Amino acid sequence: MPAEDRKERVRALLDAVRADGRTALTAPEAKVLADAYGIAVPGEELARDVEEAVARAARFDGPVVMKIVSPDILHKTEAGGVVVGVAGAADVRAAFHRIVAAARAYAPVAHIEGVQVQELLPSGPAAQEVIVGAVTDPTFGKVVAFGLGGVLVEVHKDVTFRLAPVDADEALSMLDSIRAAQVLRGVRGAPGVDRGAVAEQIRRVSQLVTEFPEIAEVDLNPVVATPRGALAADVRVLLADRAPAPRRTYTRAEILASMRRLMRPRSVAVIGASNEPGKIGNSVMRNLIDGGFSGEIHPVNPRADDIEGRKAYKSVTDIPGEVDVAVFAIPAKFVASALEEVGRKGVPNAVLIPSGFAETGEQGLQDELVAIGERHGVRLLGPNIYGYYATWQGLCATFCTPYDVKGPVALTSQSGGIGMAILGFARATNTGVSAIVGLGNKSDLDEDDFLTWFGEDADTRCVAMHLEDLKDGRAFVEAARATVPKKPVVVLKAGRTAAGARAAGSHTGALAGDDAVYDDILRQAGVVRAPGLREMLEYARALPVLPTPKGDNVVIITGAGGSGVLLSDAVTDNGLRLMEIPADLDASFRAFIPPFGAAGNPVDITGGEPPSTYEATIRLGLEDARVHALVLGYWHTIVTPPMVFAESTARVIEEFRARGIDKPVVASLAGDVEVEEACRYLFERGVVAYPYTTEQPVAVLGAKYRWARAAGLLGGDR
Amino acid sequence: MPAEDRKERVRALLDAVRADGRTALTAPEAKVLADAYGIAVPGEELARDVEEAVARAARFDGPVVMKIVSPDILHKTEAGGVVVGVAGAADVRAAFHRIVAAARAYAPVAHIEGVQVQELLPSGPAAQEVIVGAVTDPTFGKVVAFGLGGVLVEVHKDVTFRLAPVDADEALSMLDSIRAAQVLRGVRGAPGVDRGAVAEQIRRVSQLVTEFPEIAEVDLNPVVATPRGALAADVRVLLADRAPAPRRTYTRAEILASMRRLMRPRSVAVIGASNEPGKIGNSVMRNLIDGGFSGEIHPVNPRADDIEGRKAYKSVTDIPGEVDVAVFAIPAKFVASALEEVGRKGVPNAVLIPSGFAETGEQGLQDELVAIGERHGVRLLGPNIYGYYATWQGLCATFCTPYDVKGPVALTSQSGGIGMAILGFARATNTGVSAIVGLGNKSDLDEDDFLTWFGEDADTRCVAMHLEDLKDGRAFVEAARATVPKKPVVVLKAGRTAAGARAAGSHTGALAGDDAVYDDILRQAGVVRAPGLREMLEYARALPVLPTPKGDNVVIITGAGGSGVLLSDAVTDNGLRLMEIPADLDASFRAFIPPFGAAGNPVDITGGEPPSTYEATIRLGLEDARVHALVLGYWHTIVTPPMVFAESTARVIEEFRARGIDKPVVASLAGDVEVEEACRYLFERGVVAYPYTTEQPVAVLGAKYRWARAAGLLGGDR
Repeated sequence: MPAEDRKERVRALLDAVRADGRTALTAPEAKVLADAYGIAVPGEELARDVEEAVARAARFDGPVVMKIVSPDILHKTEAGGVVVGVAGAADVRAAFHRIVAAARAYAPVAHIEGVQVQELLPSGPAAQEVIVGAVTDPTFGKVVAFGLGGVLVEVHKDVTFRLAPVDADEALSMLDSIRAAQVLRGVRGAPGVDRGAVAEQIRRVSQLVTEFPEIAEVDLNPVVATPRGALAADVRVLLADRAPAPRRTYTRAEILASMRRLMRPRSVAVIGASNEPGKIGNSVMRNLIDGGFSGEIHPVNPRADDIEGRKAYKSVTDIPGEVDVAVFAIPAKFVASALEEVGRKGVPNAVLIPSGFAETGEQGLQDELVAIGERHGVRLLGPNIYGYYATWQGLCATFCTPYDVKGPVALTSQSGGIGMAILGFARATNTGVSAIVGLGNKSDLDEDDFLTWFGEDADTRCVAMHLEDLKDGRAFVEAARATVPKKPVVVLKAGRTAAGARAAGSHTGALAGDDAVYDDILRQAGVVRAPGLREMLEYARALPVLPTPKGDNVVIITGAGGSGVLLSDAVTDNGLRLMEIPADLDASFRAFIPPFGAAGNPVDITGGEPPSTYEATIRLGLEDARVHALVLGYWHTIVTPPMVFAESTARVIEEFRARGIDKPVVASLAGDVEVEEACRYLFERGVVAYPYTTEQPVAVLGAKYRWARAAGLLGGDR
Repeated sequence: MPAEDRKERVRALLDAVRADGRTALTAPEAKVLADAYGIAVPGEELARDVEEAVARAARFDGPVVMKIVSPDILHKTEAGGVVVGVAGAADVRAAFHRIVAAARAYAPVAHIEGVQVQELLPSGPAAQEVIVGAVTDPTFGKVVAFGLGGVLVEVHKDVTFRLAPVDADEALSMLDSIRAAQVLRGVRGAPGVDRGAVAEQIRRVSQLVTEFPEIAEVDLNPVVATPRGALAADVRVLLADRAPAPRRTYTRAEILASMRRLMRPRSVAVIGASNEPGKIGNSVMRNLIDGGFSGEIHPVNPRADDIEGRKAYKSVTDIPGEVDVAVFAIPAKFVASALEEVGRKGVPNAVLIPSGFAETGEQGLQDELVAIGERHGVRLLGPNIYGYYATWQGLCATFCTPYDVKGPVALTSQSGGIGMAILGFARATNTGVSAIVGLGNKSDLDEDDFLTWFGEDADTRCVAMHLEDLKDGRAFVEAARATVPKKPVVVLKAGRTAAGARAAGSHTGALAGDDAVYDDILRQAGVVRAPGLREMLEYARALPVLPTPKGDNVVIITGAGGSGVLLSDAVTDNGLRLMEIPADLDASFRAFIPPFGAAGNPVDITGGEPPSTYEATIRLGLEDARVHALVLGYWHTIVTPPMVFAESTARVIEEFRARGIDKPVVASLAGDVEVEEACRYLFERGVVAYPYTTEQPVAVLGAKYRWARAAGLLGGDR
C-alpha cells in the first residue's frame, strides 16, 4: 500500500476510535492497521451470528480459532472467549454459543459484536511463539520490544528493546539479543524460524508507532514463527490519552558554546557573596579564591563594598565586562529577581546552588526560573546543588570542601549526597578529576548537555554519571553515541528496582519495566552501566588508567593457585575470555616456572617463587602480541614482599610502554597490610591493583572491555 | 509391589544389562524400573513388526506416539525415530516404515528391536512439561533434579537440586524452588498441575537411585503434568562404570575429641624447630613464643640442645608428657619418618606445613602420610599450609606474621594466598578472629571437621570458609546443618564457573553443572554463600557484629535522597523487604522531618538537618517493635559532620541495647574522607558502616537475614 494511502486509512480509523471515546482497538480495527503496515496476520473474518460463523469457517482449509469480539473485553482468554481448533459445522455452532455465553457471564454489560473466525496457526515443534510489541516509554518515547512468547514469557522476561523506528538489520539483531536466541535458529534437529519474517514484523510495528505517536502500545502476542513465515495471532493496539508535550531542544553547537563558557570561564560572579564564615556565599568565595581560579571573581552583595578582598557589586549588572557564570548563593525566594538581572547582563550560565524549589514542592518557583532563563538565554545548572568543580581551571564553585587533584575523569551526580561520596572517594584514592558537577533538579542543563561537552573536552578521558532519571532519553542516547567512540561513559542508574509501578495494558507493557528498557537502550548507546555506587567510583578511577585492549585474549599470571581460581571465576563473570595459550607460548612460560606449577591459563608460577619469576612471566605476556591483557594474582611471601613485587612490575610495565607496548594490566594482591601500599604504588603507575579482592580488578578490566567493544575498538561482539 | 520383590526385579534386570556389556537401558528395560518403583508412565507396548504396531495402537483410546527401540540409539528424535499423534491403521503402518528407515539411515549398524507404540500424552495449555531426574555428583553423590521441561530447558536452566533420597514434603518443595513455580500453580486462568503427582515422581526417582547406587543417571524427560496426574513420557537410565570407593569416616565424638586438642592444646611440639632466622622452623617457634601461647612449647631438632631459649629434643618421642599437636617444619622427604615418631608418641594431631606433596604431583608421598596417620590415629592438617591461628589460646602455629586480635569469627582457607588475604584484611580492619586455619591439600582434616568443631566452640560466633572443593559433600552438609542453627556459616566456593566440563549422558546431567548443584545444596544446608573473596571477608567481619533481626521489616532513614534510592535498590537486590510504614509511625516520623522531606520508606529527613533529626528518627525506628532493622544513609554536611553523626548514633544504639533493644543497624556514609573515621568508630560500636558505598552495608544485612532465615529464627521463608 502506498505510504500516503496507508497513513490516510490509519488516520481515519484512529479518528473514528477517538470519536467513539475509546482507547483500545477491537481486533478487526487492529487488523486494519496490521494490513495497512503489512504486519502479517492469519486469515480471519467476523461472524455476527452463528450461521455466518459456519460459513466463514468453511472457507479456511482446516480447523479454526474462534474469539469473542467486544470493545469491552480485553482479556479474551480470561473471559472464556477463545476456543482453539474448531472443525466442522456442528463444532463451530457449539463453540459460537459457548463463547458468547461465557463472555456475557464474564462481562454482562459488554457490547458483543460477534465472534472472529480465524485460520488456525501452525503448531508443533517447528512453530515458535514470540512476542513483538511497542510501548511509549516516559523517558525514551517509542520503544519496540521482542521476546519469546508462551506462558513463560512473564516468568523468564526474555525480551529485548530498541528505540523505534528500527531498520531491517537492527530488527534482525533483536532476535540474537534474547537468551533463547539459539531456539530461533533451531535446536535438537528442529529447523529454525524464518528470521527475516520475524524481523519484518518488528520493523513494521516500529514504523507504525513512529508514524502515529498517539498509539501508546502495540502487542503482537503471540507471533507464531515457523520456518516459512511469521503470523501475528493476536494484535492489540492501545491509544494514548494524550500526546506528550514536546520539550525545548538546543543544537549541539549551542550546547557546546554555553558549556564552554560554563566549564572554562574567564569571569565568575557570586550572587550573595559574603564575608561571614559558615555562610554558603562565603564558602563559595573562599573556594573560588583558594582553589586558584585564575579568571575574574566578582562578589555581588548590595550590603558590602569588599568581600574576601575583592570589590563587591550591588548588582551583577554593575560588573564591568563580560561574565561567563553567575553562581547563586542566596535564598530561594530571591533567586528569580537576581536571575532577571543576570539575564539582563547577558550572562550565559546561572549556577543555582539554593534549594527550596521543585524538591520541596515549590515547582512554581522553579518554573518561573526556567521561564526567565529561556527569555534571556541563560542556561541553568540546578537548582538544589552543591555546585561544581573544574579542576583544570582551578575552579571550585561550591560550598563543599575544595578539591584540586587534576585528572582525566569527569563525574556528575543528580544527588548532593552522591556528590559528597564522589568527593570523599576521589580524595581517599587520590583520583584525578577534570570536573565534578551537581545536577540537582535539572531544571535546564542535564546529563545530555554535560555529556556533549565532556565528549569534546580534551581534559576529560572518561565520564561517569550518577542519575535517577533522564529528562530526554533520546537526547542522552544521541550524546552518548557521539561520545562513546572517543571515551568511556559510565552510568550509575539509581532506582533500578523501583520499576513495575507502571500500569500496563499489554504484555509488552508489563515486560517493559523501567529498568529493562533503560538497561537495553543504555547498552545499545555504548554506555558502561555500573551496578552500584562503589563500582561507578572504581570504574571512574580505573578506566582512564588502563590502556585500551587490542583483542580478547586475557592471561592470568598468579603466584597463588587459589587466587588463580577466583580470578578465573571473575574473568568468566565479567564476560572476558581466558586465552587458550598456544603451545609455543606455553613452553615459554614453562621455562620459568617450577615443574609442578601449572602453565595453561591461569599461569600458576606457585607461591615460593622470587620476584624474577613474576617479572619473567609478566614480560612474556607483554611481549607476545597474541596476549591482549594481563590479570596478576600476587601472593605475599618472604621471598617476594609486596613492594618488591610492585616496584619490579611497575618497572617492567614502564619499560614496555617506552617501547610502545601498552596493554591493560590489573592485579589482585593477597597478603598482609603492606599490600595496600603496593596497590597504591602500582595504581599510580598504571597497574590497576586492589588488595584483598580478586573480583574488583577483573570487574574494572571487564568494564574497559565493554567500553572498547561499544566503541568499536575490538573486533566482533561478545 | 513389595520392596523385596521390587529390588529383586531391578537387581535381575541391571545384572542382565551389565552382562550384556551395556550401561544404557533400553526404553522397555527402563519401563521395568519405572513400574517397579511406581514411576507413572503412559501405556505402551513394543511392536516388533508393522502389524503388531497396528494391533497395539488399536488398543489405546486415541492417537499414539511411535518411537524406535534400539540399544544403540540414545537420541531418538535426532535419529528421526519419533512420530507423534499417529491415528488409524494406515497411518500407523506408514509411520512404522518411516521410523525404521530413518533409524537405519541414522545408525546403519544399530540393532533395532522394533517400535514402541505409546499412549499419546495430554497436550494443550493444561499440560505442562517438566523434567525429573537424578545424577551422581562427584561431591554430593546421588542428587535429584526437578525443572521445567520443553525446548527451552537448557536455555533457562530453571532447575533445582536436592540430596537423594527426598521425602514427599521435600519433593513438593522442589516445585516451588524454580523460577517458573507459579506456572505449575496455574497462570492466566489455566489450572495448576497435580503437584502431588509430580512430587511423587521425584520422590520415587530419588528412592530408585538411592537403593541402586550403580544407577548413575535417571532422566524423566519430559514428565507431562496435568491437573489430573503426571506421566513420564520418556525414561532414560544410565549405569555407572563402577561404584565410587567409600571414604573412611569419623564419628562426631571422635572429631570433637581430636579437634579440641588441636584448637586448645596444652602442649605443642615443633618438628624442625630452628634458631636460624628466616627458616620456617624458626618463624614457627618465634610466633608460638611471641604470640603468648601459655601451654608448653617443645622444639624438636636432632642437632640442637636449645632453641629460642627452650630445651630441644632429638625426637618427639623424647618429650616428657603428652603432646597435643606436632607442627612440622621440615622438608617433605623427612615428613613420613617424623610422622611415624609422632604416631608412636601418641600425638593426636600433625600440622603439616611443608609443601611438595600432591600439589606438586607427589601424590604417593602424601598417600604414605595418610596411611601412617590412619595407622597411629594421628589426624593430619595439610600438608602444604601456612599453619593455623587460635587467638584465644594465643596460638600462632604458622610461619606467617602473627595475629592476635581476639574475636568471634573463625576463617579457613584451602589456599595459602587466600589465607594471606584473610590475614591482611583482618589486620587492616581490626577484625577479631577466633581462628584462621589453612587447609591446603586436605589429606585428612577438612571443612567438615572444622565446621563440627567451630559449631561447638564457644569462642566462635561465625564461621567463614574459602573452599575449592569438598571431599565429602554430604559430611559437609551434615556439619553445616548442625552448626547453622547456632551461628552463621559463610562459604566462598571458588571455581564456580569452571564447571560444564563434565561429560553428561542425560538432560539432567547437562543441567547439573557443578556449581548449580553446589549452589542449591549449600543453600539448603543453610550456608550463606559469598559471591566473591571481598564479600566473604566483609560478611565474616560484619555478621558477628550485627544482632539477629526478629522480623522482615527494614526501614531506611536517609539524609540524602540520592542515597535513599540506591539503598532501596540494594534492599531489593538482597531479597530484603522495605517495611510498609503504618500510618501512626509515618506520622511520628513526619513530626521530625521538614514538610518537604518524605516519610514513607525510605524516610528522607533531607540533607540540611541537624544531628538531632538523625537521632530522633533513629530512636523512633529502634523504639517501634514493628521495625526490625535499620539502614542509615548519612550525608556529610556542615550541620552534621561525620563524627558528630557517628557519636550520636553509637550513643543511641548503646542506650537501647542497655534497655534490651538490639536491632541490626547498617549505615552508608556519603561524604568527604572524614567519613572513614566515622565508619570505623561506628563499626567498633556495633553499627556496620561503610564509606562511599550504598551496596556493601545492605549486602551484609542481607547475608545476616539469609542466615537468620536458614537458622529458623525468622518466620516464613522468603
